[in-house]
Amino acid sequence: MNTTLENKAGASLGASLGIVGVLGGMGPLATIDFMHKMLRATPAASDQEHVPVVVSSIPQVPDRTAAWRGEGASPLAAMLASGQRLAEAGAGLVVMPCNTAHLWFDELHAALGLPMLHLVDVALAEALALAGQGARIGLLATDATLASALYQQRELAHADFQWLLPTVQERADLVMPGIAAVKAGDLARGATLLNQAAEALAQRGAQALVLGCTEIPLVLGPVSSPLPMVDATAALARRAVAWSLAQREAALAV
Amino acid sequence: MNTTLENKAGASLGASLGIVGVLGGMGPLATIDFMHKMLRATPAASDQEHVPVVVSSIPQVPDRTAAWRGEGASPLAAMLASGQRLAEAGAGLVVMPCNTAHLWFDELHAALGLPMLHLVDVALAEALALAGQGARIGLLATDATLASALYQQRELAHADFQWLLPTVQERADLVMPGIAAVKAGDLARGATLLNQAAEALAQRGAQALVLGCTEIPLVLGPVSSPLPMVDATAALARRAVAWSLAQREAALAV
Repeated sequence: MNTTLENKAGASLGASLGIVGVLGGMGPLATIDFMHKMLRATPAASDQEHVPVVVSSIPQVPDRTAAWRGEGASPLAAMLASGQRLAEAGAGLVVMPCNTAHLWFDELHAALGLPMLHLVDVALAEALALAGQGARIGLLATDATLASALYQQRELAHADFQWLLPTVQERADLVMPGIAAVKAGDLARGATLLNQAAEALAQRGAQALVLGCTEIPLVLGPVSSPLPMVDATAALARRAVAWSLAQREAALAV
Repeated sequence: MNTTLENKAGASLGASLGIVGVLGGMGPLATIDFMHKMLRATPAASDQEHVPVVVSSIPQVPDRTAAWRGEGASPLAAMLASGQRLAEAGAGLVVMPCNTAHLWFDELHAALGLPMLHLVDVALAEALALAGQGARIGLLATDATLASALYQQRELAHADFQWLLPTVQERADLVMPGIAAVKAGDLARGATLLNQAAEALAQRGAQALVLGCTEIPLVLGPVSSPLPMVDATAALARRAVAWSLAQREAALAV
């Protein structure tokens, strides 16, 4: 296994090839969904034009929500071991298609020593590009994500904005039942409830919406929405693809 | 980078964890489809019960069909480099969810020094388990796959069977137009044509069918088919999952 320092040296080689490392398995289906989002974010007419990706989908990671509640072991060591596999495989950048895993982002980033993109930074940057500096950004996410303050505590350099959250009532009546309906396959009911939640945020002054949960974008799209919206993991996929394409271009320009 | 010998040593560690290495990117969508098939092949009620997978989806591999025709560079070096990433990431077994890539299987296997499963061996073993020794096994695949003799030349130890191929007429009238219809999204027409091709093989005495092309199982299923059938890449996914679960069980038993 490499050390952090060796990872840094290896990463510059991985970067020159534009290899994106996906630290997945949390869970495995979300990992596959993220790979789909990367494909959709790539302008490619042939296999060879798609970006190179290495994936570590090792689901044997202690439950993130339980750990955050203090009811289970920390997932950090398992996440670090999985990230280390990506370093060994030559990744030049690491991304995690899982909201809750980001509660350990800073510790993981420091220990791994590879460049990483933070889901919230990327989603917020896209939302501010849509709504402008100083905007109120609505956030739709699970109670657990909201309670963890994952989005609210993340500061973005030079960004002037304000998070706008669903009220306790809206969470209980619209957001959580909407997400549950999508998980249960009742997309029509999920769309109705989540659209009402988006509408409520719009009426309180939100100028763009961040969707911080993978179920919500399955029923809320740019067409049906009252506001411009950013699917956080899709934004992460777009930014990872853009990084890889830029690396490839830079390598060709040398 | 490891040597072949180091890969063998590393593989025994990877094997003890049951980590499946997917040598993908040929193409990226087929890789994602294969990961889905692995999920569906796994009896799991939680993330943690899914099998650990590392994926190298590096699509910058010279075109396999062009190389086989003698019209392009060999993909072997790029495939080996990609397989090497899986070795570095700790894979204990390597599989390739791409028919054409298997034309370089033996060379890759020898150079990589990791255990690998051959798509045709696995599909054929499942078909013989369904149809019995001595059976005639029908094969539906593209003209390119049939012309390469990938399936026909593969011998399985102790297996007594006979491949039964579509006639030139059936390939031109049913199989190739059926696959093209599926690729174009006309699933109803694809189903009709490919069912007719399956029916023709059944009438000539096929006792089971191997589907050696990822498009065919999208419209031909066990229900609609006149014969028991094996989707070759799904069989590979099932066997890879079974390998991983057996490794985990063996490690727990120690």
